[in-house]
Amino acid sequence: MRSLAEQAVLRCLELAQCTEEPGRITRTFLSPPMRRVHELVGEWMRGAGLEVSIDAVGNIRGTRGPAAGRLIIGSHLDTVPNAGAFDGILGVMLGIALAGVTDGPLAVVGFSEEEGVKFGVPFIGSRALTGTVQPLLDADPRISESIREFGLDPSRVDDAFMQGAGYFEIHIEQGPVLEHHNLPLGIVDAIAGQSRWEITFSGAANHAGTTPMQLRRDALVQAAKWILEVDHKARSTGGLVATVGRCEVEPGAGNVIPGRVKASLDVRHRDDDVRRAAVVELVRNEDAIRLMEVDAVAMNPAMIDLLSRAAPAALHLTSGAGHDAIVMAQAMPSAMLFVRSPGGVSHHPDEAVLLDDVEAALKCAKKFVETWHG
Amino acid sequence: MRSLAEQAVLRCLELAQCTEEPGRITRTFLSPPMRRVHELVGEWMRGAGLEVSIDAVGNIRGTRGPAAGRLIIGSHLDTVPNAGAFDGILGVMLGIALAGVTDGPLAVVGFSEEEGVKFGVPFIGSRALTGTVQPLLDADPRISESIREFGLDPSRVDDAFMQGAGYFEIHIEQGPVLEHHNLPLGIVDAIAGQSRWEITFSGAANHAGTTPMQLRRDALVQAAKWILEVDHKARSTGGLVATVGRCEVEPGAGNVIPGRVKASLDVRHRDDDVRRAAVVELVRNEDAIRLMEVDAVAMNPAMIDLLSRAAPAALHLTSGAGHDAIVMAQAMPSAMLFVRSPGGVSHHPDEAVLLDDVEAALKCAKKFVETWHG
Repeated sequence: MRSLAEQAVLRCLELAQCTEEPGRITRTFLSPPMRRVHELVGEWMRGAGLEVSIDAVGNIRGTRGPAAGRLIIGSHLDTVPNAGAFDGILGVMLGIALAGVTDGPLAVVGFSEEEGVKFGVPFIGSRALTGTVQPLLDADPRISESIREFGLDPSRVDDAFMQGAGYFEIHIEQGPVLEHHNLPLGIVDAIAGQSRWEITFSGAANHAGTTPMQLRRDALVQAAKWILEVDHKARSTGGLVATVGRCEVEPGAGNVIPGRVKASLDVRHRDDDVRRAAVVELVRNEDAIRLMEVDAVAMNPAMIDLLSRAAPAALHLTSGAGHDAIVMAQAMPSAMLFVRSPGGVSHHPDEAVLLDDVEAALKCAKKFVETWHG
Repeated sequence: MRSLAEQAVLRCLELAQCTEEPGRITRTFLSPPMRRVHELVGEWMRGAGLEVSIDAVGNIRGTRGPAAGRLIIGSHLDTVPNAGAFDGILGVMLGIALAGVTDGPLAVVGFSEEEGVKFGVPFIGSRALTGTVQPLLDADPRISESIREFGLDPSRVDDAFMQGAGYFEIHIEQGPVLEHHNLPLGIVDAIAGQSRWEITFSGAANHAGTTPMQLRRDALVQAAKWILEVDHKARSTGGLVATVGRCEVEPGAGNVIPGRVKASLDVRHRDDDVRRAAVVELVRNEDAIRLMEVDAVAMNPAMIDLLSRAAPAALHLTSGAGHDAIVMAQAMPSAMLFVRSPGGVSHHPDEAVLLDDVEAALKCAKKFVETWHG
């Protein structure tokens, strides 16, 4: 398994050379470097005994055996701008490695799009595989245009539908929890639901020198109180994360009292009721705009059980980030295995994996695939 | 006095027509509309029996009598972008009105620059009058170029020096204090000192979904605590104003924990020791940069006494904004009379004055000039 782990990591590094931007890793939906990715990944898939095809949205698929009882192993091949080498890619490379050391009906899929960078909408790849991508194409004609430019036919997205009995995704954690627990592997119980809001605080912009404190209505002071409430609420609620990542002050001059502040709120939890209750408590402002509301997605209990037996020491955790498994879980039983992210770093050139962890993931996944097929 | 007050207000409105930007009032240092301002103000000064000249930085000066015992009455004729009609201008117009109803050696000066808009440096006009402008010209050659373009000679700035026995400035309050106390007039005891800083808070930018609360270092949460400390410190210290007007979050995405925040701090007080102690308490960060440090300037006690007798009901207050009197007070005894700003509004097209208040200011100022000369 050691040499397969080494090969998978080396292949991730080789794919990192396929980039839109010299010197950094950037590979968005059907951008030119994806052609070379298809060549390399196709070659490796064939080497593992898989039959290779590219579907209408550019997913690369390596299959063997009948559709009945097929386990789909996948992740994505696109990246954020200035990315690391492993986010998504590692899961596809380990799928190919697993194809070489297991039996039974199998598909390894490299999704063409998960990050949502190019058109602001994620999951084009997995939505095509589950037959739910057409609304995205209808909403933004640029997507079909991209598909045609790459030499594919957007009228054939229905053909991208793939039948499967289960979906399994290996992914780097992209967070610090496994490292904090000094563990190589995590088993995902659920992918957290997300609520995103924009909150506006209104005060009165005034001269910072001539307006006494008791006559002020400072929008930033209001916002600061609320930012601390958000932090306190999350720290006092098990498993809740809540973040104010954006805070724009108007007029934003050092000598003018802030008249208006627009702040973002991002709240996530594996339990939708807990998330919604937190939002009700934190969003009291009339000027609040709901930007996004996605419910939590549970992973399949039977598959979680098989993973737990394959890796008894693995930590059970909730994924705070979205993954293709969110979409796949709507169509079939799904499970995810996390690999420790050193430093919790992801979406950054410093993203890394430990070879021991990759080997542990392969061993666990091999047992999982064998027992799942058995 | 009523008709003189009306005339002064109408003249302010007439000068508001002299602007660089049609539809709004913007008149920076020696911009083209300043020529028409010189024509009109010169005509009105001559009508009040003054001898008119323009000095090398474009100050317009109307004088009568000898330099010995001369009271200089002045304010500025430039504006911020999209200004109101009265900031600065009213003081010059009331100076001309006073020239018509008083005796004794007098100069009325309309300063060409106080706001610091064009070159980021204020007080070009008053620094020329007090013989301290040369360092500004040496530091920024664009100032001399502007002077030449207007048809004046920057090599003659020394000739702009004016001897005076005292300086008196009438100005709108630009704040809400007089309105809050329902009083038309204020007597300035001191112009507050100012400290301006930029403070950087450093945390660790991370994924808002995958980083548990206890593993975060959120720079915006640090900044929010500090913003509330700033507010609390000012509210619990008599006469202190402290403002965080700018707060820039990096990377500033809704789904990323803030890794860095740069915030401004503006602290003002009439007592330099109180201001400095507040700064020491609020600026503990190693990444703090001092942008500005100006000590408070006391107005002349004898002149304050004369003003108090002329307007016994007037409120004694500290000016939180800077004025030409800061510069003039370095050269001669100086005093300021504030006129109520409805709504506390200034640096805005809605800036206004009440006719009754202008009349009250004229009556007070006439008594003050008479007793000062007597």
